[in-house]
Amino acid sequence: MNKVVIFGVGLIGGSFARALRKAGAVRDIVGVGRSSASMARAKELGIIDAIGVTGDASEGALSLAEALHGADLVLLAAPVAQTEAILAAIAPHLQPGTVVSDAGSTKSDVVAAARRTLGDKIAQFVPGHPIAGRETNGPDAAIDHLYIGKKAVITALAENSDADIERVAAAWRACGAIIHRLTPEEHDKVFAAVSHLPHLLAYGLVDDIANKPHADLLFQYAASGFRDFTRIAGSSPEMWRDISLANQPALLAELDAYMAQLTSLRAHLAANDGVALERIYSNAQQARHQWITAIEAAEAPPSPDKAE
Amino acid sequence: MNKVVIFGVGLIGGSFARALRKAGAVRDIVGVGRSSASMARAKELGIIDAIGVTGDASEGALSLAEALHGADLVLLAAPVAQTEAILAAIAPHLQPGTVVSDAGSTKSDVVAAARRTLGDKIAQFVPGHPIAGRETNGPDAAIDHLYIGKKAVITALAENSDADIERVAAAWRACGAIIHRLTPEEHDKVFAAVSHLPHLLAYGLVDDIANKPHADLLFQYAASGFRDFTRIAGSSPEMWRDISLANQPALLAELDAYMAQLTSLRAHLAANDGVALERIYSNAQQARHQWITAIEAAEAPPSPDKAE
Repeated sequence: MNKVVIFGVGLIGGSFARALRKAGAVRDIVGVGRSSASMARAKELGIIDAIGVTGDASEGALSLAEALHGADLVLLAAPVAQTEAILAAIAPHLQPGTVVSDAGSTKSDVVAAARRTLGDKIAQFVPGHPIAGRETNGPDAAIDHLYIGKKAVITALAENSDADIERVAAAWRACGAIIHRLTPEEHDKVFAAVSHLPHLLAYGLVDDIANKPHADLLFQYAASGFRDFTRIAGSSPEMWRDISLANQPALLAELDAYMAQLTSLRAHLAANDGVALERIYSNAQQARHQWITAIEAAEAPPSPDKAE
Repeated sequence: MNKVVIFGVGLIGGSFARALRKAGAVRDIVGVGRSSASMARAKELGIIDAIGVTGDASEGALSLAEALHGADLVLLAAPVAQTEAILAAIAPHLQPGTVVSDAGSTKSDVVAAARRTLGDKIAQFVPGHPIAGRETNGPDAAIDHLYIGKKAVITALAENSDADIERVAAAWRACGAIIHRLTPEEHDKVFAAVSHLPHLLAYGLVDDIANKPHADLLFQYAASGFRDFTRIAGSSPEMWRDISLANQPALLAELDAYMAQLTSLRAHLAANDGVALERIYSNAQQARHQWITAIEAAEAPPSPDKAE
């Protein structure tokens, strides 16, 4: 690609830039962001070649029209709360040859925002979600190998051309990612179940304990099992507030299913029904064991026998 | 001590034996258990000096009366489902100078079982719970440093003499543990909140997902956050069935409080109340951060400045 424009050059956007550059898949990278300090730092680190702003050109920074001119690919990697505003800002400047994608953790809401803002340019928007992350952020956190072996989900729209979808897929493949395809609705249901609900449950448990009068005593006896169970409650509250609201319908459905499961577990416990409890615990333990075994088999390098 | 008798010489009982021996705190250790293969292995490994059985003497094994004769301390470290049967078996042979303790994860039920079985010897029973564990079990898993720096909770009864409590405390201190004191009821409420409920929640989530028609798709996208959150659902279903039932009243109370918390979170989510969601998420994140910071400060070696 000749030119890639990235909104938000932190861990996700900056690592995308570094990986594309390392693969020789891009000539010029323009970073656009609200924080001029972050943008300057990203340029200093060599992550981006030029800085753009969302308004008119300023000293040392391109206007949005200049930034987008001749772009092959635009990636939205800013906090998801900014997605609609960014799409609205770029819509007037979007040229026919440019494909826009994003890296948001939810997709149905992003698609709705794109339909509202891009109008008849909607075919140029190919939504995506790279499944990678770390606890660090900002341009200094960006690394060229973040996406190697990770999944990049593309949730294409009916309006997208195969060539535009392939441009996004090829960029993620150049970063080392493995392409998966889901509809936006499938994507949101899946991540509500395996990611968004567990976050809500972990935040809920820690808050519940922290609000008890004897919270200090409780935390004193919390051990490694509690630490692992609540690790995701150490994540950014603002980010997870936004994700919870963005994926509200799917998350509500998963939460309702889980509360029904707890109601059932409560009834077994109240009835001292050890057989029913053990059936649920065993099924969970076995399912988790199979899952872990499958992951480890997939992650293991091919054995010498197989490679021959 | 001259003689210690341990029921169940797996990870917990075997590590207690090894640690006492390493500290030079005991002369003879007798192991008693249902599996003659495990007992033979424990003797072969030098964990115990002699083998006892719960009935009459058999070839190479002491009768229960012989095993208990002159014992300073008896530790019950067999699966908790066996606790009442073991207490009933030892009651007739229990001499006045012997103190009995246990290592069970729940205490109110153990105290009730001890009151039913030991009768007027109840003062000799000092309930305990060492907070240590690993994923391995059996005599080969036993190590002499399992308890170093770990908590050993003693939930003494009103009937216990200070000298008997001190004998149990001294044994755990010899193993490197730090003694904590709670009532049996406090103990069970604390562990219902920080251990038993999280296990039930994790089992419940994995079972819920595993039973969905698209379970394979869901597990395919589960990542490291899900893996940590559900790690405790990899624990023994039988053991956690027993713990859930043994601590049923306290666990029901914690589960009810948590379900009320989820009902509240659901209402905020349904109302798109980002302020309320963020307040809960932030409170949880901050409480967890303070807890982790406190743990790490407690675990860190004293700095050279402080040591001077």
